[in-house]
Amino acid sequence: MVKGKLFVLSGPSGTGKGTICREVLSRNNGIRLSISMTTRTPREGEIHGEHYFFAEREEFISLINEDGFIEYADVYGNFYGTPKKQVEEWLDRGQDVLLEIDVQGAIQVKKNYPDSILLFVLPPSIEVLRERLTGRGTDAADVIERRMASATSEIGLIGEYDYSIVNDVLAEAVESVEAIIKGEHMRLTRETSEAIVRRYKQEV
Amino acid sequence: MVKGKLFVLSGPSGTGKGTICREVLSRNNGIRLSISMTTRTPREGEIHGEHYFFAEREEFISLINEDGFIEYADVYGNFYGTPKKQVEEWLDRGQDVLLEIDVQGAIQVKKNYPDSILLFVLPPSIEVLRERLTGRGTDAADVIERRMASATSEIGLIGEYDYSIVNDVLAEAVESVEAIIKGEHMRLTRETSEAIVRRYKQEV
Repeated sequence: MVKGKLFVLSGPSGTGKGTICREVLSRNNGIRLSISMTTRTPREGEIHGEHYFFAEREEFISLINEDGFIEYADVYGNFYGTPKKQVEEWLDRGQDVLLEIDVQGAIQVKKNYPDSILLFVLPPSIEVLRERLTGRGTDAADVIERRMASATSEIGLIGEYDYSIVNDVLAEAVESVEAIIKGEHMRLTRETSEAIVRRYKQEV
Repeated sequence: MVKGKLFVLSGPSGTGKGTICREVLSRNNGIRLSISMTTRTPREGEIHGEHYFFAEREEFISLINEDGFIEYADVYGNFYGTPKKQVEEWLDRGQDVLLEIDVQGAIQVKKNYPDSILLFVLPPSIEVLRERLTGRGTDAADVIERRMASATSEIGLIGEYDYSIVNDVLAEAVESVEAIIKGEHMRLTRETSEAIVRRYKQEV
């Protein structure tokens, strides 16, 4: 049984990575989205098991102690993490898994899963990112400035990633992600090459 | 100016790699096919500059001495090679280049151009390959046996390649090659990551 592949999508706030994820999931049968666990309070409209698994602090910490996370972080006093169990079950069943997590999380994933594939979503330009964040109309000026500063520091870590996708036109960005997923399934590793040689030799 | 990418397609005789190349070229504007040079006599219907550049032995050897080939080989007394000049001009202009060459040539290319991307076309199975070669009705039994033996020794070198494409349904194989080409353009290298960081920092 060939294992599934672990894809990680990150990118600054306002690049549309959430929308890209949803589109890829709705079009690409077979790929599964991992839901993060968090100890923060649910916001209005957030559904347990859909947006997050909401957990008590003690529960989260005991899962950390059991090595139950692929990655986790403490963000301003709230824990966020990717539980290991479900992801590994999917991978073992040959299903691809998509994680939408931040840059620090992605770097942790790559360390623990060197075969994971890291995708970074870029805005067409910094100016466009600022326009998108401003255009939302939901954030105060200081929040926007904080997001802009985060964006440049996140982009500074793009060297840790395998692919970058510029999200200018959504449909094209989605197709780009799909091409990357498709291509990665044809990518040869030492293991897959050896398996091919064995298989074709047996047949002769 | 971003340089073009060098893609190399190989695979055993009978896997349909020539057809895949033609389809990719006809659909993918921008990618250029490099024409090999050979010292063998043209066969009926072969056109100079389309199937091969036919050259005299002295001409070929003097080009070898000028380091004018990306790769070349002496096959049963006839030289075959990929002239460097045209390929490098295309790459410098930002155009992708496709080479359809054998495994030995591909390995030479990878040595000289570490950024080149090597694609190997596989038959669905060894049995299907035998059926295809037999079904052509053009080759004698001993020629087919020789091709089958070559096929397994070529597949034995698949570990040198970056991607493998199983050519079962032609249209799917063509789409696979296109996905690989598309994906490789988004693949990050140290150079492209650094360029992205510089570009987005300048804009702030």
